Amino acid sequence: MGDLEIRAVVADDIPAVVGMLADDPLGAQRECPDDLAPYLVALERLSSDPNQHLMAAVREGQVVGTLQLTIIPGLSRRGATRSIIEGVRIHARERGSGLGTQLIQWAIDESRRQGCQLVQLTSDTSRTEAHRFYERLGFTASHVGFKLPL
Amino acid sequence: MGDLEIRAVVADDIPAVVGMLADDPLGAQRECPDDLAPYLVALERLSSDPNQHLMAAVREGQVVGTLQLTIIPGLSRRGATRSIIEGVRIHARERGSGLGTQLIQWAIDESRRQGCQLVQLTSDTSRTEAHRFYERLGFTASHVGFKLPL
Repeated sequence: MGDLEIRAVVADDIPAVVGMLADDPLGAQRECPDDLAPYLVALERLSSDPNQHLMAAVREGQVVGTLQLTIIPGLSRRGATRSIIEGVRIHARERGSGLGTQLIQWAIDESRRQGCQLVQLTSDTSRTEAHRFYERLGFTASHVGFKLPL
Repeated sequence: MGDLEIRAVVADDIPAVVGMLADDPLGAQRECPDDLAPYLVALERLSSDPNQHLMAAVREGQVVGTLQLTIIPGLSRRGATRSIIEGVRIHARERGSGLGTQLIQWAIDESRRQGCQLVQLTSDTSRTEAHRFYERLGFTASHVGFKLPL
């Protein structure tokens, strides 16, 4: 396989990125790849926020993975800054290639570079394979994640 | 009890807020109320970020509660914005007073006002009372929360 580049998502990537968000058991019910307008509005907001890093993994000109890294300053843990990883997706044809590990490792390295003392993420309780993946990368399943739709 | 005000934390509140962060089974090991300098640096960073809302609940001039609300734009769920609640603390003498509910309700209302479609938070697996509290407020324990200290 060709070299991998991990870089910020730009507007031209949105069809491929939204395609990956939708190509997922949970995402299929939540995404709308036929109408990209709300995603392009969201990208503008993300791109203008220095604490947001919406990334694309690109191989041979194709977007094959994505994640969102958010840097969150905070008061607790002696004024620690933490990061949160959201929206991790790997293209179907790249699964098992080690790309997920490379993307999460990028997020960990970038968090360290930005002075974070903690990286956190939540994963739907149904994604048991993902849980084993994160534990192999050194994460601890120490918390319960609560959500409230508005 | 007197009226409650929920407003942004200012530097003069830091001793009281850090005292609450430390007055907690987990916080006692992580906080350092004898050296407020790192907390004051973190407050400056928080105060300059329009997506951060570090709040104090104040009754009769005393800080009796705190939480941090972070607004996170995103691409998934059709470009949905979500919010994350962190660092919820209620002063020992206010526990059971309904203040926790008022603070979380403030965060839910503010999230709605800012156009969020989802509020989320994680709670240490050991905080079983807190879990029941969030479920009573309508949150669903749908996720596993992973953390990696750096």
